[in-house]
Amino acid sequence: MEKMITIDGGVTAPKGFKASSTAAEIKYKGREDMAMICSEVPCTAAGTFTKNMVKAACVKWDREMVASGKPVQAVVINSGIANACTGEEGFRACRKTAEAVEKALGVPADTVAVASTGVIGMQLPVDKLEKGVADMSKKLSHDAESGTMASKAIMTTDTVNKEIAVRFTLGDREAVIGGMSKGSGMIHPNMCTMLAFLTTDADIDRELMQKAVSEAVDESFNMITVDGDTSTNDTFMLLANGLAGNKKIVSEDEDYLSFKEALLYVCTYLAKKMAGDGEGATKLFEAVVINAKSKEDARKLARSIVGSNLSKAAIFGCDANFGRFLCAMGYSGAEFDENDVELWFESSEGSLKVFEHGVPLSFDEDTALKILKAEHVTVKVNMNEGDFPATAWGCDLTYDYVKINADYRS
Amino acid sequence: MEKMITIDGGVTAPKGFKASSTAAEIKYKGREDMAMICSEVPCTAAGTFTKNMVKAACVKWDREMVASGKPVQAVVINSGIANACTGEEGFRACRKTAEAVEKALGVPADTVAVASTGVIGMQLPVDKLEKGVADMSKKLSHDAESGTMASKAIMTTDTVNKEIAVRFTLGDREAVIGGMSKGSGMIHPNMCTMLAFLTTDADIDRELMQKAVSEAVDESFNMITVDGDTSTNDTFMLLANGLAGNKKIVSEDEDYLSFKEALLYVCTYLAKKMAGDGEGATKLFEAVVINAKSKEDARKLARSIVGSNLSKAAIFGCDANFGRFLCAMGYSGAEFDENDVELWFESSEGSLKVFEHGVPLSFDEDTALKILKAEHVTVKVNMNEGDFPATAWGCDLTYDYVKINADYRS
Repeated sequence: MEKMITIDGGVTAPKGFKASSTAAEIKYKGREDMAMICSEVPCTAAGTFTKNMVKAACVKWDREMVASGKPVQAVVINSGIANACTGEEGFRACRKTAEAVEKALGVPADTVAVASTGVIGMQLPVDKLEKGVADMSKKLSHDAESGTMASKAIMTTDTVNKEIAVRFTLGDREAVIGGMSKGSGMIHPNMCTMLAFLTTDADIDRELMQKAVSEAVDESFNMITVDGDTSTNDTFMLLANGLAGNKKIVSEDEDYLSFKEALLYVCTYLAKKMAGDGEGATKLFEAVVINAKSKEDARKLARSIVGSNLSKAAIFGCDANFGRFLCAMGYSGAEFDENDVELWFESSEGSLKVFEHGVPLSFDEDTALKILKAEHVTVKVNMNEGDFPATAWGCDLTYDYVKINADYRS
Repeated sequence: MEKMITIDGGVTAPKGFKASSTAAEIKYKGREDMAMICSEVPCTAAGTFTKNMVKAACVKWDREMVASGKPVQAVVINSGIANACTGEEGFRACRKTAEAVEKALGVPADTVAVASTGVIGMQLPVDKLEKGVADMSKKLSHDAESGTMASKAIMTTDTVNKEIAVRFTLGDREAVIGGMSKGSGMIHPNMCTMLAFLTTDADIDRELMQKAVSEAVDESFNMITVDGDTSTNDTFMLLANGLAGNKKIVSEDEDYLSFKEALLYVCTYLAKKMAGDGEGATKLFEAVVINAKSKEDARKLARSIVGSNLSKAAIFGCDANFGRFLCAMGYSGAEFDENDVELWFESSEGSLKVFEHGVPLSFDEDTALKILKAEHVTVKVNMNEGDFPATAWGCDLTYDYVKINADYRS
């Protein structure tokens, strides 16, 4: 059996998916700010959405659509304005957008998902959305380039676009999962991250796909944090159009495992890319917890380490101030005995143990500095109390984070 | 009955309390870094301590002492090194410090509380502690100046010292509560704040005093946040020596209420002072929540608003980006309907309503800017769902917060 491999492209890599983008001038000028994904045929859809009590109108729209189990065929996304805290007028913008797709492409409005990212508490200009949809409907293409352009159009404070595609085997067929995501600030996903859209030509039962999605999101997007702020707009959706022609996955067999492996790979790639591109970030900051008492404890510990402002500032300053990481573990909500804990700093430059059995070890500061200066720094913690691991990803806290977010209405 | 009034001084203001300080060169050079408070007679003690799983050796020492119900007569505090994550050697430092007080003053070692603040994961130099105690024992004084010097010696990244004293009436006597505290970073108290020591000459039953302390701390120190990092060293202690000569408070009568009012005033003053002096802060940032469904919800909402990095950065940038405050409310854990919410920005410069019934209001940006430029900015939220209020305090997130904490081993 051929192994899973990464291939060029993103959301348009699977069979039957097209994308396009346009400059609708919703809020940004001089750049594209709308994107569209459309399948040639209706898709099975799975998704996860923000747990924030304040949900954007589009999140409510999509959540209902996914929960109903009905097919989804297209997604329209805009950047610049989040369509959150916008009341009835916000819902109207969703409906008008979906109706514009029906008008242009004949795709039924109730199969069109919508997503927004940007400033909260500002109304979307419906006329510009409608014009944007009309324009994008003419430009839909299966080219890799159109997927890339779409992944760029949904960026806000992101500095790089995020997309990936992998090919894997299902029985005697090849299937593809492609994906794009955005997210840089207000990132502390709870159920999923800012915006991520995945496409696949695999044929899979809806409930099984939702299960795979929930588990993959929990291990990837739900393990990243930039600033502890869970957004009002977090949306993850996977659309499957079945055009790979594989025998439909209806049980947790080998094909399901192959599908899930590919899905987790794509999710983890996009999540890490998002964490490393956190607002103002100079580094990807990873916490690896091993041998915790429970899975939940391992997750709490790893997330608390990468979520601490003081840990993040220490990583920015290349300061081996390991006490801050132990402090963050201490308030994580996990129960443990500090006398069991071992802690290392690791990167491509080496590994250095700094804490063991409740006491600090003396270590060479130059070695520590060399390790911490790398672009991807890991804090590894052995709890020595069980056998549950977890990994979380974040970024450093920098002057530029403050600059970006103190700037007017970013 | 005379009203409660603020008087000069701090921990030495109540009868029978002395203080002193010294430069022991524990870690800092060229400044005082040890302080001592001593009562002429043994005191009833009450306290609250960090809920962080990783507790400093001194926190464990004090917690046991307060829980035992035995009297406390002196407190020795050092800045520079936190004595956290220091194993058995850390406990030895506590014991040796207490024994040094017994040797110098005849005060039994098991009535000496100890506290530390500074770098986690570094051992205290016992010889310097002992020398410091010997020196301070000779300099103990009831002067207001000695209390002020003590409040300065316990500072770390604080930019101003924090002390206060109030006089109030208990029956036919006057009593005083004095206090000092420190705290600027790693401030997100859970049970209490960094370090706060209060003294009083009031005579009050120990259990009643503990009740008053727990309630006052919950409304004050537990409602401030600088960076979401609950420290390993949070310590709050109140020592009462009874020298005011009042009829001992043994029930929740009028005297108890007077005592509690004075206590809450002192705690709130110190807590707000701490929030406004958050690391790198330029402003005191207050969240006032009214008409929430429950007390717990009101507290969660207020704390989430002042704790959000994005809210804090917006306050720094004087940006009326109210969506970020609603977003922080949404992930606070409180349940509410955004359509009920009203939101105002307030300061000495005026009041401006920006959100109502689930939709943004149009407002004058110049007016908003004027209000947000003040040194004390309030976000007021009416939940319109019940009648429970809460207030929380924090500060803005600035370049200097990053600078201070990226600097080597602060």
